[in-house]
Amino acid sequence: MRRASSGLMPIVALDRKANRSLQGQIYDALRAAIVGGELKPGQLLPSSRRLAAEIGSSRIPALNAYAQLLAEGYIETKAGSGTAVAATLPELFAHCGPAAPKASSADASGRHLSQRSGQYPNFVATPRIHNHGAFVIHQPAIDQFPFHIWGRLAARHHRSPGLKPLIRIDPMGTPALRQAICDYLATARAVRCTPEQVMVVSGSQQALDLCCRVLLDPDDCIWMEEPGYFLARYIFQANGCRLVPVKVDAHGLSVTEGEKACSTARAAYVTPSHQFPLGATMSAARRIELLRWAGRANAWIIEDDYDSEFRFESPPVASLQGLDPNGRVIYIGTFSKVLLPALRLGYIVIPADLVERFQAVRFCMDIFPCYFSQAALADFMLEGHFVRHIRKMRLLYGQRRAALIELLRREFGEAVTIHGSDAGMSVTASLPHGFDDQDIARRALERKLWLFALSPLYAGASRRNGFILGFGSTPSSAMPGAVKLLAELAAASRQQGRKTKRARSST
Amino acid sequence: MRRASSGLMPIVALDRKANRSLQGQIYDALRAAIVGGELKPGQLLPSSRRLAAEIGSSRIPALNAYAQLLAEGYIETKAGSGTAVAATLPELFAHCGPAAPKASSADASGRHLSQRSGQYPNFVATPRIHNHGAFVIHQPAIDQFPFHIWGRLAARHHRSPGLKPLIRIDPMGTPALRQAICDYLATARAVRCTPEQVMVVSGSQQALDLCCRVLLDPDDCIWMEEPGYFLARYIFQANGCRLVPVKVDAHGLSVTEGEKACSTARAAYVTPSHQFPLGATMSAARRIELLRWAGRANAWIIEDDYDSEFRFESPPVASLQGLDPNGRVIYIGTFSKVLLPALRLGYIVIPADLVERFQAVRFCMDIFPCYFSQAALADFMLEGHFVRHIRKMRLLYGQRRAALIELLRREFGEAVTIHGSDAGMSVTASLPHGFDDQDIARRALERKLWLFALSPLYAGASRRNGFILGFGSTPSSAMPGAVKLLAELAAASRQQGRKTKRARSST
Repeated sequence: MRRASSGLMPIVALDRKANRSLQGQIYDALRAAIVGGELKPGQLLPSSRRLAAEIGSSRIPALNAYAQLLAEGYIETKAGSGTAVAATLPELFAHCGPAAPKASSADASGRHLSQRSGQYPNFVATPRIHNHGAFVIHQPAIDQFPFHIWGRLAARHHRSPGLKPLIRIDPMGTPALRQAICDYLATARAVRCTPEQVMVVSGSQQALDLCCRVLLDPDDCIWMEEPGYFLARYIFQANGCRLVPVKVDAHGLSVTEGEKACSTARAAYVTPSHQFPLGATMSAARRIELLRWAGRANAWIIEDDYDSEFRFESPPVASLQGLDPNGRVIYIGTFSKVLLPALRLGYIVIPADLVERFQAVRFCMDIFPCYFSQAALADFMLEGHFVRHIRKMRLLYGQRRAALIELLRREFGEAVTIHGSDAGMSVTASLPHGFDDQDIARRALERKLWLFALSPLYAGASRRNGFILGFGSTPSSAMPGAVKLLAELAAASRQQGRKTKRARSST
Repeated sequence: MRRASSGLMPIVALDRKANRSLQGQIYDALRAAIVGGELKPGQLLPSSRRLAAEIGSSRIPALNAYAQLLAEGYIETKAGSGTAVAATLPELFAHCGPAAPKASSADASGRHLSQRSGQYPNFVATPRIHNHGAFVIHQPAIDQFPFHIWGRLAARHHRSPGLKPLIRIDPMGTPALRQAICDYLATARAVRCTPEQVMVVSGSQQALDLCCRVLLDPDDCIWMEEPGYFLARYIFQANGCRLVPVKVDAHGLSVTEGEKACSTARAAYVTPSHQFPLGATMSAARRIELLRWAGRANAWIIEDDYDSEFRFESPPVASLQGLDPNGRVIYIGTFSKVLLPALRLGYIVIPADLVERFQAVRFCMDIFPCYFSQAALADFMLEGHFVRHIRKMRLLYGQRRAALIELLRREFGEAVTIHGSDAGMSVTASLPHGFDDQDIARRALERKLWLFALSPLYAGASRRNGFILGFGSTPSSAMPGAVKLLAELAAASRQQGRKTKRARSST
């Protein structure tokens, strides 16, 4: 045995200002030396006393670091000869395996990712410019939210929640919130359900994911509104489903077209109260046709009722779910628009005979939703703040919507078409042929205006140009400037388009 | 036109005490009559004035209900002849489609559910008896949680969160919490990462689901510890993966066995700090072997570090992640055990080159985590409450663990084997052959004692009998009675087993 090797001391650079303890730093340095091959299996280590002296610390940290390395099997004690690197350690892997990947390589070259993960589009953060941009979609007037009330209710539950709700594991959510949602939906949306059918979810996106898993297998066909909601498209696609784009007209999704394209689809995804993005309200005739098709095809209807709280002139439209006697409709709603997106709360109303299956799947996905926000929201609803807030916002959004449409008319005149019914938190405005909405959106970004283009919401080649213009979070003072800039950009883009065309035809 | 038909009036039964408005009730009744076929397409309706008189209300609700039915297309106005059921409504579906499913039929007979949803086990609510049962697993001492501090921090963020964090959409979580988690992991767990690699998730179960989606395709093989964590098994199975059970011994998962069973597996799921349920700490040699295999096989290692905060005598074991120079380890942790399960917060540390993919997938799953709980938790960590709470709990759990083991020894003597290292919030105790843990668990339920049997945690036929005995939430006064009852039940079950055996051998 080379006793001399005990003199070899790996460099233990200590940083007394670091977060990590001295003992931790010694442990790290020795382990790194062992793993890195500087200290070989069987090699003797200095005594803890000598190590301590060498690095100028007390003996305790060194002793503790040795104890830990010993407990984890990196080193071993040898009777009579002190402490050594464990002789049985496998050959060190510094010399094997592929090289460390570069932190910047996003494609993970050579590393196996799942094929299915390739079905998810890249996440692109929305540039939140000019205090989140005049036309940001799906964003409520957060500054109008009654935080003083919300804070009081939340504090109550955070301070003394009691034991019982904290040990409850229920994938469906808290009984109080489910009851409150059920009551609200019965009154405001003519949804027919019991609290047992209501599941609280982390926003409507989780509800869609859950529906996919319970109802659809890879390669199953699903009708999607054309144009339609991009996040629904993403998640159905990611779950391996085949999307069947079905045209939308002034009465909503065309059931005849759907049957022509794929009469045996497993499901239809619809936004009947306020079609996203074109804003149609599905007519009674279409609703009945759709339910009849679902009956014939043994298919499901996923009803996404994302912003029906806000209708400004006509009374709210009753849900499709309430019209369905056969339990074929899965009804999805969210608190992201009517309250706050950062809450991450939504709900599904599940046909009674499917509740168990939804519950089983949800349990495996993330067990159950956070207790605290559910408790605060249940009180918010029970004490009437919810309905009051909706009423207040309906008034505000009605005004903002009217102002925006008036401005669009003033700037664009007859060139602009305003789509859909008098509802929601955005206006979909389409432009005549010759405008390129994505080009305008790109130019707008340079001018710090965020625009949501309409044409990418189509799956097929036949597309309209236009924009979904959110107004929920935009004070009326910010609107005229934004619309003016939009008009300016549109004119510039059109001119550019003409020039390109002329240039092309002259060559 | 049969003018007389306008005299036919559907029964509109009003309930003035109901939640639903008069107008809503009239609307519901008329729509039901139209949809149900009592009112036929083309049939005239009474004037709103007559309807109002008939039901004894003012005219306004009747007018509004008509307006809504008109807007939705159920009725139409005919010049000169009043209002009628829309002539173009499709044949009513009361007469078509399969019969309404019975609310009680859980199997959804005849209705298509996805095949993959059959991969999820049914959710069975844990009976929470005797104030959640003496041996409930994975449950912290909730009564020791500093709710006064937690309530103060939460109130702060709920009352005045500011606009900026509420409009931020980040699938990774809030910057403050990710930084706090990163700092904590570097110090306490020797995890090597930047905050950019930390993603906040809704508990570790969501982390596992996310890993499946990003890393594994259906039919991909994954090594699972045998015995192992049931919820991990559920979600990998549900995602279509093939589970390869790999034996665990006193040094953790046996890499040699794993390579024999399936050397080309895509991933390994491990709990190296404190194996669930047998409690081994993976040795340094095994860690290196596992990392080497992952390098050779181009495979991933999913490290679930679910309760490593609680080690009572030895220093905490460093993470496997920190030992891996090649970015093959995905590290998962949770706040469910160290704080509260009802919080639904956990984290993943993602290899740098995979962050984008995880982000993309998570965005489609549920967009981003709830802001409020993240904000409160970040402060809780930054202000030092987190580390203080861990220290306090470590002391308490250490005492509870020692007391439980002492009691087990007293009641069972040498018949009981206590597994694993001195760590965590539960003790795994196995019983000699001849005991049937599932039988004992069934009998225990009748006596209001909840027991988590060990044998179902094995996938293969070779199983040990025993129990995972949680002690986190059990005051020491409740423990002796519970252990006594356990011993009594075990003795009874064994006797029963002998009798059955004797009866069998005598026939």
